[in-house]
Amino acid sequence: MKGERLIYLPLGGAGEVGMNLYVYGHGRPGRERLIVVDLGVAFPDMDGSPGVELIMADIAWLVERADRIEAIFITHAHEDHLGALAHLWPQLKAPVHLRRFTAHLAGQKLAEAGIGDGALHVMGPWPETVTAGPFTVGFLPISHSIPESAGLVIDTPVGRVLHSGDFKLDPDPGVGEAFDPDLWGAVAAGGVQALVCDSTNALVDRPGRSEAEIGPALEALIAGAGGLVGATTFASNVARLRTLALAAERAGRRVVLLGRAMRRMVEAALETGILDRFPPVLQPEEAAEHPRERLFLLATGSQGERRAAAAALSRGRYLGLELKEGDTFLFSSKTIPGNERDVLRIWNALSEKGVEVIDDRGGLYHVSGHANRPDLEAIHDLMRPKILLPMHGEHRHLREHAGMVAGKGIAAAIAANGTMVDVTGDTPKIAGHVETGRVYLDGALLVGALDGVVRDRIRLALNGLVMVTAIMDEDDRPLGDAWVELMGLPETGKTGRPLADRIEADLTEYLDRADERVLTDDDKLEEALRRIARQVAMEEIGKKPEVVVVVSRLMAD
Amino acid sequence: MKGERLIYLPLGGAGEVGMNLYVYGHGRPGRERLIVVDLGVAFPDMDGSPGVELIMADIAWLVERADRIEAIFITHAHEDHLGALAHLWPQLKAPVHLRRFTAHLAGQKLAEAGIGDGALHVMGPWPETVTAGPFTVGFLPISHSIPESAGLVIDTPVGRVLHSGDFKLDPDPGVGEAFDPDLWGAVAAGGVQALVCDSTNALVDRPGRSEAEIGPALEALIAGAGGLVGATTFASNVARLRTLALAAERAGRRVVLLGRAMRRMVEAALETGILDRFPPVLQPEEAAEHPRERLFLLATGSQGERRAAAAALSRGRYLGLELKEGDTFLFSSKTIPGNERDVLRIWNALSEKGVEVIDDRGGLYHVSGHANRPDLEAIHDLMRPKILLPMHGEHRHLREHAGMVAGKGIAAAIAANGTMVDVTGDTPKIAGHVETGRVYLDGALLVGALDGVVRDRIRLALNGLVMVTAIMDEDDRPLGDAWVELMGLPETGKTGRPLADRIEADLTEYLDRADERVLTDDDKLEEALRRIARQVAMEEIGKKPEVVVVVSRLMAD
Repeated sequence: MKGERLIYLPLGGAGEVGMNLYVYGHGRPGRERLIVVDLGVAFPDMDGSPGVELIMADIAWLVERADRIEAIFITHAHEDHLGALAHLWPQLKAPVHLRRFTAHLAGQKLAEAGIGDGALHVMGPWPETVTAGPFTVGFLPISHSIPESAGLVIDTPVGRVLHSGDFKLDPDPGVGEAFDPDLWGAVAAGGVQALVCDSTNALVDRPGRSEAEIGPALEALIAGAGGLVGATTFASNVARLRTLALAAERAGRRVVLLGRAMRRMVEAALETGILDRFPPVLQPEEAAEHPRERLFLLATGSQGERRAAAAALSRGRYLGLELKEGDTFLFSSKTIPGNERDVLRIWNALSEKGVEVIDDRGGLYHVSGHANRPDLEAIHDLMRPKILLPMHGEHRHLREHAGMVAGKGIAAAIAANGTMVDVTGDTPKIAGHVETGRVYLDGALLVGALDGVVRDRIRLALNGLVMVTAIMDEDDRPLGDAWVELMGLPETGKTGRPLADRIEADLTEYLDRADERVLTDDDKLEEALRRIARQVAMEEIGKKPEVVVVVSRLMAD
Repeated sequence: MKGERLIYLPLGGAGEVGMNLYVYGHGRPGRERLIVVDLGVAFPDMDGSPGVELIMADIAWLVERADRIEAIFITHAHEDHLGALAHLWPQLKAPVHLRRFTAHLAGQKLAEAGIGDGALHVMGPWPETVTAGPFTVGFLPISHSIPESAGLVIDTPVGRVLHSGDFKLDPDPGVGEAFDPDLWGAVAAGGVQALVCDSTNALVDRPGRSEAEIGPALEALIAGAGGLVGATTFASNVARLRTLALAAERAGRRVVLLGRAMRRMVEAALETGILDRFPPVLQPEEAAEHPRERLFLLATGSQGERRAAAAALSRGRYLGLELKEGDTFLFSSKTIPGNERDVLRIWNALSEKGVEVIDDRGGLYHVSGHANRPDLEAIHDLMRPKILLPMHGEHRHLREHAGMVAGKGIAAAIAANGTMVDVTGDTPKIAGHVETGRVYLDGALLVGALDGVVRDRIRLALNGLVMVTAIMDEDDRPLGDAWVELMGLPETGKTGRPLADRIEADLTEYLDRADERVLTDDDKLEEALRRIARQVAMEEIGKKPEVVVVVSRLMAD
């Protein structure tokens, strides 16, 4: 209809790998009816978000428009697409559409948060569709590193939009649906207004490989190994769990699942019928009765997570199992940038035990779940969209992906988080910018990334802390000496005297001679004491710490 | 002589890439005369050492035996071999032998620390030697990613030891000496008792490549680029600076050096005569007068260091220069594990500006300074040592390196930091373990890594802080309410009340009814208040913070 438009608005995922959250809208500007695609998380790190549990997109814009949200769609069950559901859904409260395996895991998440699963609506694969306001949406199966991944076919008054979800082009993925070029081609046959497309691997030049290709190498590795063999991969990569477990079985080894997520995923895949056959697993406590060279441990923690099974095995005995000289441990995984140190810590700890550690440096034991550059080109050519909107990737990935269609008659736009794009016409138009950002789950609360809470913790980590206490009597004169406590600072400075004593002495001296205008003014007094504490610390230890000053004033009765 | 032995003892570098510090000794057990090879640093990170300036090996063992140290040798000027000199030398005070370029930079470091360069003794290349107690030592030139790198020929009463230093086998390194197999072969001709050998790249399967190989690709890249072209690499890689600058010059561009280390290294190389020719550089302030497409910026910060020039350029204007759409920026470097996030931050920020960023993913624009696996094999075959001691590497590198000589008639031992190896005989014997570890330069002080100072800062970063102040009157009764300050915690909890108020209320209530045995005992009282503060925080924000309690007691006059 005249005056209406189709908009695309990433709130998360377009500027990072992780934290996916995309919005589509159709209607008159400012009155569009909306659907939300994915509610994902990103993971914290010490550099930028110490002590934080999870990171998610700031959905303030959506919450203000909650009455315009027709539905939420979750493309697949990876944490960076599903992980924020239980945390953000209570603010959105729209029906959630997803496939069965995804719904299984989503239901667990909601239950853990004390939320019922009444909002979850399981959908079958395309051509099944659901209507959500101006949109009709179906789940188009696609191969990825988790079962039942799907792209979304989003039919709009303006035409068909294809939201790829995360995907790879695997003709033989082991578990779940293979990529079906005929099916995707048929969906595109009537024309695609916009392809909104995964960019994660846009910088990888070689073509993607199939899960089926690594089975023989894994089997050869496991069959050739002497002692106990362990391996780690993403627990949600059910196809890989199967590939590894079958390789182990063929090599005459019993499979032991280590880590809650590992057991949970296999159970989910069996319960939902995704996984046709998985070797019967041995409980860790039964493993002791089996010869070591007949065991295969499948452990969580491929990213070096310190509380996962792989890290526990690297530290020592875990559930009665211990790796030692002559054993083999395989990382059937890629290390996500930023996790290198944690992964190498495990590798080195295992190396100290004499364990042979194998990673994927030869490309033999892992394949990526994302479409590489040639695969993206194949999808562009197959879908022939009017408009390409690269999504899910850091800015460098989005940029590289957009550059790929130059000269192909496809109009591309780089739209980072918060960029609203009008995709009504033949070319994408920037329609505005929405205030966006990140929210931290910190303990049990959601706090804004810019609220200063985490920034203060980073300062404490970098600078250490001096706490100053001073008591002022009823006449606003110091009562006794100032008192100093340190945290995260050396006890003794250059002069060899305790740092706290040195600061206390200077503070007390100052208090004794400070004039009344300062002594009666909390702000001035605190500022003066802070300045002195920092100055003494700088002299003594060459560092300017954070300083908190507490001035207590006794009141005349 | 009978009863004497030759020992090797790594105190740093054998268990990490960085922080090199090796000890050799000869004499009766416990009375060996010692030499020290390299005094290097490692770099801190937020995960393990927030707020720390530098990390170095704990040299307590050496300091206790300082009277037995004959000399210190520095193989080359990289920070992980030289960086601790100014910090640790005052505790060792032995003569320091090094080559001219290394001495130039060492002198600057000592001068900055207010230490004269009287201990520095410049040595020429092999066959020049110096005698240090039972050792006669010479600097054997070798190619590496910094000028005048050298292995050490260490002649001992037991035979010849070859300490490789960091090295690669480059027949055409551009700057400094090429690897000379005839020279190394001649040194080995009389037999090598032990080869102590760089392991950094033991996990890299392909043969190393020469610096000369990347010149043409760099020139093609720069010549083909449109706007302003910038590049970053390690400032100390003088050969690369030259390769890049010559490529830029041939492409008709003037070179601008950005970053203090970049200018300092070029100056040092010119002053010491290492660098025969370097294109005349343009000062940043002169650059504005030149067309952008005639400029080439050579910037510090290849590892993403936030205060270096590359990061500054990614944030915006730097010294009047600004990168924008159509410009190109090259990382002519490898990202050291752990620095990925910082490097990608720059890449993405430049991508947002529309800058084309090129890294070394194609292997075109960077070659490593370390010997890869085939190169290490070539050195083993050339030197034919009795004993191989892999050094400089994480445990996984040492292990891989040691495994390479299995079946070759060379005895290898994996000796991590603190492992004393007796290399007197035909096979290495573990002679003991020395307490070792890491020391942090924190501000201006050296603090032990296990002193708890940094651990407390990490706790503050993860958990946030509650500061509790309570004042007790002369009768040991609470005077007024407890006072709470927060740092790094949300202000408001689940109940919507200010968290500080909630904690204060519970603390005050407790104080009002606490019995005298607690109120009169500082430890008990602090523990009780801490427990309550943590419990309220857990209820309100789902987090258990660090709690510092200050109880002030008014004294009866």
